[in-house]
Amino acid sequence: MVEFSQLGDNEVFSAFTTYGTIALAKVMLMSVITSFFRITRKAFDNPEDVPNPHKEENIKKFLRKDDRVDRVLRAHRNDLENIVPFFCIGLLYSLSDPDLTTALWHFRIFVAARIYHTIAYLTPLPQPNRGLSWLIGYIVTFSMVYRLLKNKLYL
Amino acid sequence: MVEFSQLGDNEVFSAFTTYGTIALAKVMLMSVITSFFRITRKAFDNPEDVPNPHKEENIKKFLRKDDRVDRVLRAHRNDLENIVPFFCIGLLYSLSDPDLTTALWHFRIFVAARIYHTIAYLTPLPQPNRGLSWLIGYIVTFSMVYRLLKNKLYL
Amino acid sequence: MVEFSQLGDNEVFSAFTTYGTIALAKVMLMSVITSFFRITRKAFDNPEDVPNPHKEENIKKFLRKDDRVDRVLRAHRNDLENIVPFFCIGLLYSLSDPDLTTALWHFRIFVAARIYHTIAYLTPLPQPNRGLSWLIGYIVTFSMVYRLLKNKLYL
Repeated sequence: MVEFSQLGDNEVFSAFTTYGTIALAKVMLMSVITSFFRITRKAFDNPEDVPNPHKEENIKKFLRKDDRVDRVLRAHRNDLENIVPFFCIGLLYSLSDPDLTTALWHFRIFVAARIYHTIAYLTPLPQPNRGLSWLIGYIVTFSMVYRLLKNKLYL
Repeated sequence: MVEFSQLGDNEVFSAFTTYGTIALAKVMLMSVITSFFRITRKAFDNPEDVPNPHKEENIKKFLRKDDRVDRVLRAHRNDLENIVPFFCIGLLYSLSDPDLTTALWHFRIFVAARIYHTIAYLTPLPQPNRGLSWLIGYIVTFSMVYRLLKNKLYL
Repeated sequence: MVEFSQLGDNEVFSAFTTYGTIALAKVMLMSVITSFFRITRKAFDNPEDVPNPHKEENIKKFLRKDDRVDRVLRAHRNDLENIVPFFCIGLLYSLSDPDLTTALWHFRIFVAARIYHTIAYLTPLPQPNRGLSWLIGYIVTFSMVYRLLKNKLYL
C-alpha cells in the first residue's frame, strides 16, 4: 500500500482526484437537466412547485408524470447506482498502490463509458448503446474490486 | 496537496470529518421519518410489511401510495443526489490543502442549506425556500469541483 | 487520529478496504438481478429496451411494471440509502484510530446484516427479518457516527 506521506506526489491519487471529480460533477448535472425538463414540460411532483400554486386548476394540470422527466430520473438513478460505487471503490483502489498506467485506463474508460451512457439514455440511442456503455463501466469497477480483494483479504 | 503524515493534526480534515458525518447522519434520519409515516399512515410497499399480512384485505387496504410518504422518499432521494456527491468531492477537496477558513465556510453553508432544504421539503414551505436551499448546496459543491479541477488536471 | 505515513500497515484501514469493497460489490450485484428479472419477466421501463422495439405492440406489452422487478429496485435503493453512508462514515471512522477489534466487529456485523437484508427482501422472508437486519446495520453505522462526533467536534 502507498505510503501516505508521499500522497502529495502520488500520481494515481492525483489522477483519481481529476476523474472522480469529473464523474461526480456529471452526476450532479443530471439535477439541472431534470429541472430543465420539469419547467419546460410543466411536469411537477410537488404542489408547491407548480406555477401559481394557489390556483387549484394548476395543481391538477401540472402535478403529473412526464416521459422525458422520468427518463432523466432513471438516468440519474443509474448514475447513483454506478458512479458512487466506482468512486468509493476507486478511492480504495487508488490507495492500494496500483500501476499508474493501469489505473489511468481504468479511470479514463469508466468516465468515457458513463458520459456515453448518459448520451445514450437521454437521446435515446437504440440498444445496445446504453447497455454496452453500462456494462463497460460495470466491468471496470469490478476489475478494481477484483484487485482489491485479490491482493489481501482482511476478514 | 497536504502531507498525509500530518493528517492527524490537519484541521481541514478534522472539520470535514465533523461536517461530513453530520450531513450523512441527516441523510440516514430520513429512513426513520419514512418508517414513521408508513406506520402512522398505514401505507406500505411490501405485502409482508402490512399489519397482519396473512389477512388478504389488509394487503389490499394498506399496500398503497401516500402523499406524505412519497414526499419523504423524494426528500431522501434528493439528499442522496446531493449530499453523497458533496461528501465525495469534499473528501478530495479536504485533501487538496485548501485554506482552512474557506473550507470551513464551504462545509458550514452546505450543511445548513441541506438541513433547511429538508425542513422546507417536509413542512412543506412555499417555494423558493426549497429551491434556493438546494441551489446553495449545489453551488458550494461546484465551488469545490472548480477548485479541484482548476488546481491541476491529471488526465 | 492515525498517522497516515503508517497507513500502509494500518490494520483497521486494511479491514475497512476488504469489508467496504465487499459491501459495495453487493450493491452493484443488484443491477444484475434487476436485469435478470426485467429480461425473464419481460418488464421494461424504456421503449428501446423491449425485444423488437420497432413493433408497436411489443412496446405496449412489455413497457410495464412488475412486482418482482419493483422489489429488486426497492432493495437496491435501500442499499444505496444504507451502504453508501456506511462506507463514507466507515472511511472517516477507520482514519480516526479506533480499536482494531471494535472496528472489525462493526464491519463484520454490518456486512452480514446487509447480506441478510437482501436475502430477506428478495425471498421475501416474513417480517421482522428484513426490518431487524436493516436496524442492525443502522445501529452499527450510528455507533460509528457517535464515536466520530464524540471524539472531537470541529465546528
